[in-house]
Amino acid sequence: MRKIRVIGIGAGNPEHVTIQAVNALKTCDVLLVPTKGAEKEFLANLRREICDRFITERQPRYVHFAVPPRKSDGEYQRSVAEWHAAIAKIYEDLLLQQVGEDETVGLLVWGDPMLFDSTLRILEHVQANARVAFDYDVIAGITSLQALCASHRIPLNRIGKPVEITTGRRLSEGWPAQVDDIAVMLDGIRAYETVDTTDVTIHWGAYLGTPMEIGLSGRLADIGPEISKVRAEARAKHGWIMDTYILRRPIDEVDEDQ
Amino acid sequence: MRKIRVIGIGAGNPEHVTIQAVNALKTCDVLLVPTKGAEKEFLANLRREICDRFITERQPRYVHFAVPPRKSDGEYQRSVAEWHAAIAKIYEDLLLQQVGEDETVGLLVWGDPMLFDSTLRILEHVQANARVAFDYDVIAGITSLQALCASHRIPLNRIGKPVEITTGRRLSEGWPAQVDDIAVMLDGIRAYETVDTTDVTIHWGAYLGTPMEIGLSGRLADIGPEISKVRAEARAKHGWIMDTYILRRPIDEVDEDQ
Repeated sequence: MRKIRVIGIGAGNPEHVTIQAVNALKTCDVLLVPTKGAEKEFLANLRREICDRFITERQPRYVHFAVPPRKSDGEYQRSVAEWHAAIAKIYEDLLLQQVGEDETVGLLVWGDPMLFDSTLRILEHVQANARVAFDYDVIAGITSLQALCASHRIPLNRIGKPVEITTGRRLSEGWPAQVDDIAVMLDGIRAYETVDTTDVTIHWGAYLGTPMEIGLSGRLADIGPEISKVRAEARAKHGWIMDTYILRRPIDEVDEDQ
Repeated sequence: MRKIRVIGIGAGNPEHVTIQAVNALKTCDVLLVPTKGAEKEFLANLRREICDRFITERQPRYVHFAVPPRKSDGEYQRSVAEWHAAIAKIYEDLLLQQVGEDETVGLLVWGDPMLFDSTLRILEHVQANARVAFDYDVIAGITSLQALCASHRIPLNRIGKPVEITTGRRLSEGWPAQVDDIAVMLDGIRAYETVDTTDVTIHWGAYLGTPMEIGLSGRLADIGPEISKVRAEARAKHGWIMDTYILRRPIDEVDEDQ
């Protein structure tokens, strides 16, 4: 039976790769490589660097495929589901046409396949369709959230306290209930600008783990506008941006004494 | 100036170690090794295995120190703060007495220093005390939560949805507001037993990444009691347990259409 290995390769630093991921890469006969728009060329080069550096013996075959764009009109969940189904169809065709029945295929995922990534959901589509039989495993990788915390030398959580990981879209609907620490990923709308800034602290980073990495920390009221300025300039310079941030508000004293 | 490197070494599998962590380990003149009770002997052996396997050239000096127990009486936050201050004092003494001014010290942390770990807070104590000058950096590592998701081949979040990372103590006070996916760490009180189980799914794992790893997934109503039984048996057998789990409840259709 075909085997698929879903391999987290970290947030942008080739050295984020784990020994487990390196060993998994070395078992792959084929690597499926998605190609997106020009703005992701940096990531494609980084992926190539990781493969060139760590696959030192037998070279896999590289099979490139174009990732179809997601329709941005219509209801969000439905458009995502349709997009996943379309990618699942591509996986099926590639597995049947390009991968032998006893071969192992690597799917390289930025960060960790667990966090805001579609690969596992797409593989479930492929298994449900049952056109091609395969087994798969998952190798964890360092996420951009971990790279952010390492770069700012901060914990994600406060002592014994919960943390919510959420999206910019969600945050723009209001600060989540019952939680004082929030990590925001996938924020293309600068939702931090909508937050009531009273005493909220932000730790922000973009291009985490890469040579272009930038970061800012401080009171959101003081540095929020600067983050927006730096963000816009970096985006114009590089043609794309990937960023993430943590927001903290003071812990309620009443809550503290619970 | 002394340099401290806070190095995440993963959740229990030596191969969770990143290339960045391996390279950081190799720069250390001294490794500070905490010793705890006998129940953590497995972890001490695993740490030694990681060092022996990946530090292949110049060997660091190993400096062992006993971690004082945290007082379990009194108010939680205060007892934690006192415990951190006591460990900070130990770090200060060890840095002054055992580490040269130009040397590099490694602190090896299970999982990632960002998530439910005290090391960064303790270093802030040491810096605030200003008895010893040092700089420090942080290397991210694979957490048990990532090992859980990899093992169960599941994403942490659902599409575009938030996730709360919390503790057993918190969960025992009730399901968090406005979130349908929860990751629970540090649950010594089996808080999942207190959850209204209607259609809640659980993905549970213990000793993640190690050869003793066990896991169970299913409807909480069906397998909650089995998890408690398996957990108690494993704890009796090994003398200790570290486990983590994810709970999901069905997403409200109204919310879905937002």
